[in-house]
Amino acid sequence: MPPKKSTGQVQQWDIFELALEGPDTENPFTDINLTGEFTCNGRTIVQEGFYDGNGIYKIRVMPDIQGNWTYRIFSSSALMDGITGSFTCIKPSGINHGPVRVRDTYHFAYEDGTPFYPFGTTCYAWTHQGNELEEQTLTALSVSPFNKIRMCVFPKHYEYNYNEPELFPFEGSAERGWDFKRFNPEFFRHLELRLRNLMELGIEADLILFHPYDRWGFSKMDPETDERYLKYIVTRLSAFRNVWWSLANEYDLMNKAIKDWEKFAGIIMRYDPYCHLRSIHNCFHFYDHTRPWITHCSIQRVDVYKTTELVNEWRERYRKPVIVDECAYEGNINHGWGNITGEELVRRFWEGVLRGGYVTHGETYMDPKEILWWSKGGWLHGSSPPRIAFLRKIVEEGPGKGLTYVPLEWDSVCGGVPNEYYIFYFGFFRPSFRIFRMPKGMQFKVDVIDTWNMTINELPGTFEGDFRIELPGRSYIAVRMRKV
Amino acid sequence: MPPKKSTGQVQQWDIFELALEGPDTENPFTDINLTGEFTCNGRTIVQEGFYDGNGIYKIRVMPDIQGNWTYRIFSSSALMDGITGSFTCIKPSGINHGPVRVRDTYHFAYEDGTPFYPFGTTCYAWTHQGNELEEQTLTALSVSPFNKIRMCVFPKHYEYNYNEPELFPFEGSAERGWDFKRFNPEFFRHLELRLRNLMELGIEADLILFHPYDRWGFSKMDPETDERYLKYIVTRLSAFRNVWWSLANEYDLMNKAIKDWEKFAGIIMRYDPYCHLRSIHNCFHFYDHTRPWITHCSIQRVDVYKTTELVNEWRERYRKPVIVDECAYEGNINHGWGNITGEELVRRFWEGVLRGGYVTHGETYMDPKEILWWSKGGWLHGSSPPRIAFLRKIVEEGPGKGLTYVPLEWDSVCGGVPNEYYIFYFGFFRPSFRIFRMPKGMQFKVDVIDTWNMTINELPGTFEGDFRIELPGRSYIAVRMRKV
Repeated sequence: MPPKKSTGQVQQWDIFELALEGPDTENPFTDINLTGEFTCNGRTIVQEGFYDGNGIYKIRVMPDIQGNWTYRIFSSSALMDGITGSFTCIKPSGINHGPVRVRDTYHFAYEDGTPFYPFGTTCYAWTHQGNELEEQTLTALSVSPFNKIRMCVFPKHYEYNYNEPELFPFEGSAERGWDFKRFNPEFFRHLELRLRNLMELGIEADLILFHPYDRWGFSKMDPETDERYLKYIVTRLSAFRNVWWSLANEYDLMNKAIKDWEKFAGIIMRYDPYCHLRSIHNCFHFYDHTRPWITHCSIQRVDVYKTTELVNEWRERYRKPVIVDECAYEGNINHGWGNITGEELVRRFWEGVLRGGYVTHGETYMDPKEILWWSKGGWLHGSSPPRIAFLRKIVEEGPGKGLTYVPLEWDSVCGGVPNEYYIFYFGFFRPSFRIFRMPKGMQFKVDVIDTWNMTINELPGTFEGDFRIELPGRSYIAVRMRKV
Repeated sequence: MPPKKSTGQVQQWDIFELALEGPDTENPFTDINLTGEFTCNGRTIVQEGFYDGNGIYKIRVMPDIQGNWTYRIFSSSALMDGITGSFTCIKPSGINHGPVRVRDTYHFAYEDGTPFYPFGTTCYAWTHQGNELEEQTLTALSVSPFNKIRMCVFPKHYEYNYNEPELFPFEGSAERGWDFKRFNPEFFRHLELRLRNLMELGIEADLILFHPYDRWGFSKMDPETDERYLKYIVTRLSAFRNVWWSLANEYDLMNKAIKDWEKFAGIIMRYDPYCHLRSIHNCFHFYDHTRPWITHCSIQRVDVYKTTELVNEWRERYRKPVIVDECAYEGNINHGWGNITGEELVRRFWEGVLRGGYVTHGETYMDPKEILWWSKGGWLHGSSPPRIAFLRKIVEEGPGKGLTYVPLEWDSVCGGVPNEYYIFYFGFFRPSFRIFRMPKGMQFKVDVIDTWNMTINELPGTFEGDFRIELPGRSYIAVRMRKV
């Protein structure tokens, strides 16, 4: 029996999808086993399938080597069991560099080796706002510096977030109750549309699987439902190369135990054959980021005053990449987590990046329609995004190895590649000049960078050893030194 | 034999000085013992005398009760031994409230009970700059909010401080060597003139007895010289009611051991019958401020980012008043300790004061003549002093008990008197409104204070329980609540 749908060729790291007509059972979400074995040159991917409604079962695979792939379907349904087929995996094109992996302990790269420097933003509930606002958000993202987005599967109930979503993940309703054994495929297809939109923009989806801000019951499902949900969503989405699994936003505000989270991690690893990045985000207390399933630290700062200034300490403690996914948002709402200045957010970006980590943006400006970027998306109103773009460009033009904290001075933060490349950043300090004491025998080109006004002043000549650099005596100045 | 000089009456806490002609010995600084016993209504002060040059020996006493005082002089010199006399101590007038004492564990008051809220500044070497600049400094101080000044006995050698002082504390010279057994009375008389000038302005002199920034040898004297110096200066100055003893600026940069500092503290206590305030100031590591001789913590922040935000922790640790005498200075010089903005310095003041401590100002703006306030005095150029004056006024208009940290919210700092008076401060946060949850059954008057623009907006009516206050969505806003 031929597969109902397959494309003859697919790009490496793109999605090959099989759509199969299957049996109409009491509950096709739970009654039917469906697995595919996909093989190419000795590489085999075992990929679970899922029920997508209307009698259609699907299997999606992300082929990760180029060549001819063959597959065979195994199912408890005779309608699907034994199906075989093949397709060709061709080389990727455009911005398709594969999924993001950890590289060099503290940094990231796409699977094709291209460095990936996360400059993320936060729109927790943007996929629950209806098409008009969601498409506005995509337009805003397309002209933004952001290449990662923190977003929740479930809708959000919280201040500034009392609107009802159009779609829910389960059959039923909040009033009548949910049938937690039956998923709503339309909900997931909508989510997948948005993941695909993000993929086309080159944006990684840091997908939050659980969160506490809830009035519908999705934060308090029974253990079997949690597991079924995880299996279903990971099975559906793991072929999207731009998916990262964030087990929770603020795991410690949820009524779940550490053993629950550990079990959830196991389920994700079981059903994601591509080993997408995995993290878990805190409110008050960090999760134990040394746990082997955690690929990188997704941190909410726990001190009001020292946020990204601690990145190098966290790197040393966990020996993993550090992304400060919440260090407070630019805005002016009532809460301290959402009313810092653009200047302060950009300062926190520079601190975190020069200490060898990464920082995530968010925006919470009061809005008459309560459309706050941090949750609903919409337009960006703040002053930080262009400065974050400026920083991203500087990082991308660097040596390409990711930055390491180089503790040379007590009153500046320095990141770089020792003996090759340094950026000194003075944050809120305002030096009128500095004496630098660099290694002898190396010539440096020196640039004075105004990180707020986004100017780079390349000084004439080269510098060596001890030298004095005149500075503007303003805050937010950096000095870049590149060995010549 | 009558005393050579005595005034018939003296105000309480002012200086009664006896000047006696004494013997011309080989070294009158060390050869002669001279002590006075001063008695009034059962109170006796035993006060050492000192040699002031030109054959004159002096004894100074600060009478601390009103009434008729009699005295008797004891000396190894028959010329002075046995002298008796009397004077009348009358009630103080004007700004004379007596010396400053610790009150209520964490705060200060003058001896007459008037609260003293330290709002200090820093001019380390101002008395070594010659009369013209010194008088300019006094003029600047007279129109400033500052009521305490950190100042060194010895001249200062450091960046921006390479000028040579006119006077030195010892006979001799840097070239020919010092005769450490012979003081230069002119040096001390000049210092006393400046202490008297400060006293007349109502400014406490936080007098730093040792410091490491030295090219003349005063930081590396032998132990006997250190002791002789301490005995001499404490004997000369302890009758000045506005003197505080700061054993060191940055004790841990000096080549002295803890046992040396402890010995020095003993000498000070031995020769200061008035028990002036005593502290010792750190660079990298706090001294053990639990030591019983330390009256209050004189702190230099040891973290680049968290400075006065730690005041409440230090209060709890040491159970003494906390003065953050260095939290970085407003300015634009090369060093991080001297180039923060006025906004940031004022923010640190509010943080420290609302956490129940006190904060000290300093200013380090580049100057073509290298006259930087922090060391030489001169004029004030910064933006923080008027805002510090504004804060001082608010504190002085408060309940008069000193502020206590009231940890009500994670994203504001609140200081006050519980159930009576609260000031919430939002620092760099920018709330557009806040919901306050105050104790039921109390009516509060509410003021919205812009700490930078120095405005107080008293809201109409009174507020009780849970209520919402609209705020300007800018940084540096405070909300004051006073129970009616």
